Amino acid sequence: MGAIITLTTDFGLADSYVAAMKGVVLGINPEAKLIDVCHTIRPQDIAQAAFVLSTVYEFFPRSTIHVVVVDPGVGTGRRAIILRTPAADFVAPDNGVLSYVIRHYSEESEAVDQRQLKPGPGLAAIALTRPQFWRSPVSPTFHGRDIFAPVAAHLSLGLSPDSFGEAISSLTVLPLTRTFLAPDGTLAGNIMHIDHFGNLITSIRGRDLPQKASEITVKVGDRIISGLSQTYGTGEGLLALIGSSGYLEISLKEGDASVALKARIGDEVRVKIANNS
Amino acid sequence: MGAIITLTTDFGLADSYVAAMKGVVLGINPEAKLIDVCHTIRPQDIAQAAFVLSTVYEFFPRSTIHVVVVDPGVGTGRRAIILRTPAADFVAPDNGVLSYVIRHYSEESEAVDQRQLKPGPGLAAIALTRPQFWRSPVSPTFHGRDIFAPVAAHLSLGLSPDSFGEAISSLTVLPLTRTFLAPDGTLAGNIMHIDHFGNLITSIRGRDLPQKASEITVKVGDRIISGLSQTYGTGEGLLALIGSSGYLEISLKEGDASVALKARIGDEVRVKIANNS
Amino acid sequence: MGAIITLTTDFGLADSYVAAMKGVVLGINPEAKLIDVCHTIRPQDIAQAAFVLSTVYEFFPRSTIHVVVVDPGVGTGRRAIILRTPAADFVAPDNGVLSYVIRHYSEESEAVDQRQLKPGPGLAAIALTRPQFWRSPVSPTFHGRDIFAPVAAHLSLGLSPDSFGEAISSLTVLPLTRTFLAPDGTLAGNIMHIDHFGNLITSIRGRDLPQKASEITVKVGDRIISGLSQTYGTGEGLLALIGSSGYLEISLKEGDASVALKARIGDEVRVKIANNS
Repeated sequence: MGAIITLTTDFGLADSYVAAMKGVVLGINPEAKLIDVCHTIRPQDIAQAAFVLSTVYEFFPRSTIHVVVVDPGVGTGRRAIILRTPAADFVAPDNGVLSYVIRHYSEESEAVDQRQLKPGPGLAAIALTRPQFWRSPVSPTFHGRDIFAPVAAHLSLGLSPDSFGEAISSLTVLPLTRTFLAPDGTLAGNIMHIDHFGNLITSIRGRDLPQKASEITVKVGDRIISGLSQTYGTGEGLLALIGSSGYLEISLKEGDASVALKARIGDEVRVKIANNS
Repeated sequence: MGAIITLTTDFGLADSYVAAMKGVVLGINPEAKLIDVCHTIRPQDIAQAAFVLSTVYEFFPRSTIHVVVVDPGVGTGRRAIILRTPAADFVAPDNGVLSYVIRHYSEESEAVDQRQLKPGPGLAAIALTRPQFWRSPVSPTFHGRDIFAPVAAHLSLGLSPDSFGEAISSLTVLPLTRTFLAPDGTLAGNIMHIDHFGNLITSIRGRDLPQKASEITVKVGDRIISGLSQTYGTGEGLLALIGSSGYLEISLKEGDASVALKARIGDEVRVKIANNS
Repeated sequence: MGAIITLTTDFGLADSYVAAMKGVVLGINPEAKLIDVCHTIRPQDIAQAAFVLSTVYEFFPRSTIHVVVVDPGVGTGRRAIILRTPAADFVAPDNGVLSYVIRHYSEESEAVDQRQLKPGPGLAAIALTRPQFWRSPVSPTFHGRDIFAPVAAHLSLGLSPDSFGEAISSLTVLPLTRTFLAPDGTLAGNIMHIDHFGNLITSIRGRDLPQKASEITVKVGDRIISGLSQTYGTGEGLLALIGSSGYLEISLKEGDASVALKARIGDEVRVKIANNS
């Protein structure tokens, strides 16, 4: 069956690790369609992988299987899982790399401070414990090739998730960046991601801001941006806008905002909303 | 239908932007074959994208759809188009990224100095104006995902280009580098592209040079190269040869000519042809 | 037929060279499944390409065709070949890029010091001499597009290897790194490859080491590592372990061993095995 299997890893582009996973998948399901999401996640950066995955899975057809292998604990006690959601299936280590997906399908209030989260309605989480679906022997250093790839391939053939192991009732989530209302009345968030263009993607969601863009002032470092732009191509210099994933973004017209502002992931961003009483 | 859709962008390899486009395509045409041309076009470098595209489209089957998203004006007034040619269909912003394709199918004389070019015989150009083929809502910052990808996918299902909008009668072209006969009798051109190996690809076409390679002297910066080589592996040091796209190239055997010559895109290259009277 | 064709090149990611090969393949066999192994082989580094290929081909289905284009001698006298093995078919220049594959299928004793190796039982080697399967004209600088890609595509349609040329009885191999027992009783090898994570992959095979990992001491530069770890995630600091391709690897927990040790390909690594008499 021509199921889509996407791959997100920190394996880089200089080795054969990604191709080895693809070879294993195609040996089990020759009709699988393999799509690369990203292989340049910083080595072992679970938070970056979680964010990148969160911005893409909803644009794939429903039956897609997303495999994520950013796995500093490979070969140790961390669990490997299948997570079935209404939007897609995920095959990954249970190390927080699915945090945004899990939060999306959980009660918001639960999601913030717990390191272990219960899957909400519509979710099924299975720990991969049945070696008959793995390559043998399993290399303790490359579960991507020997566990995640073959499990995803068998799953793409239509097997039920619970064929692969036992249902589990809690999942690991990262302490995700959140926005909060600061005592001075500003909305405070952080830079979650810096993209290839140097755009600073913040944790502040567009839906939490007023419709009237002119009422907004954004502060990042010692720079202040007045109003929201609609596009990267309007205005001059530093811009703030709502990016394609729905988050407040800071961009430099025809330049790289991260370089110009010496910005780093985690830096604070504040939004002041004009008092329109 | 298993149509081929290629992608050329400046999205880089560190984000999910390319994968989001692929997800959207596969949601509309699950049988599409997606091929990456290049995603490391320098940010917003329309000329580089135009050149890279020009060197590859003729090697794909005729029904291929080439999608190009190097789009500094995304969300502003620039048009989005389908260009149908005898060789392939193209889906792109109307910002010059199809300049070489358009020039190939137009009168040479027209092509040089006009910024707006009429499509020649065999061409059809359509402005994308029908939102029913787009994702909804359209992000003003990511037409690649919300307009170009779904339009290419619907086109790959066999819809006629004029389903997507109105025919237009002029297209934007870049002022492309041209070669000319200098007053001293030399052929003057420029470096159009520097490839991954550091080879300098010039605007001078092999077909404009004499068959007898020994009659040629190439000058770049303060270096002079006598005669044309057949291959990268012959001779020593700096070589001039006709590269695989038909242009005069300057190469350094077992080295990087761009580094050795501190060459840059736009630098002048002169060819002197021996007087064989 | 939906045959798998993999590509390994030094073409990089900034040009259209890889895509041109894919276009040519799909023009001949529209059902071919194209998989990238690696395109960031250092320019003209035959040894690196040979190693990367050696770590991946056995994970693909048996009918896979692996195309390798790292080809400093393109257009000169070097031969182009098909190598058929029990594991897969290979299409490549005869310049040593298939050294590990050839050695795997030859007598070990022969393999070490000869630059020309006879294919062993189960192998068939064909020199590509029949231009009817090539693009025409052939660019002397891009056999990947004009010879290797179309030959692989026709081969994927089921043609017999000997359709493409004449059987040959010896093949070029690199003088591969080998391990040997040094006079002081240690096992001596070299760093063969440094991967994306900075792991140092040595020429010493896990199967040549004792089962009892605690009996082993590894020396690299002036650093000594006692014992073998099972995974990257155990212990602290520098680790030695048997990596996923079966070779002894040196790794730095949560870091880059190649940077920390200023290690380079070719550096010596010694293993001392405790006297368990």
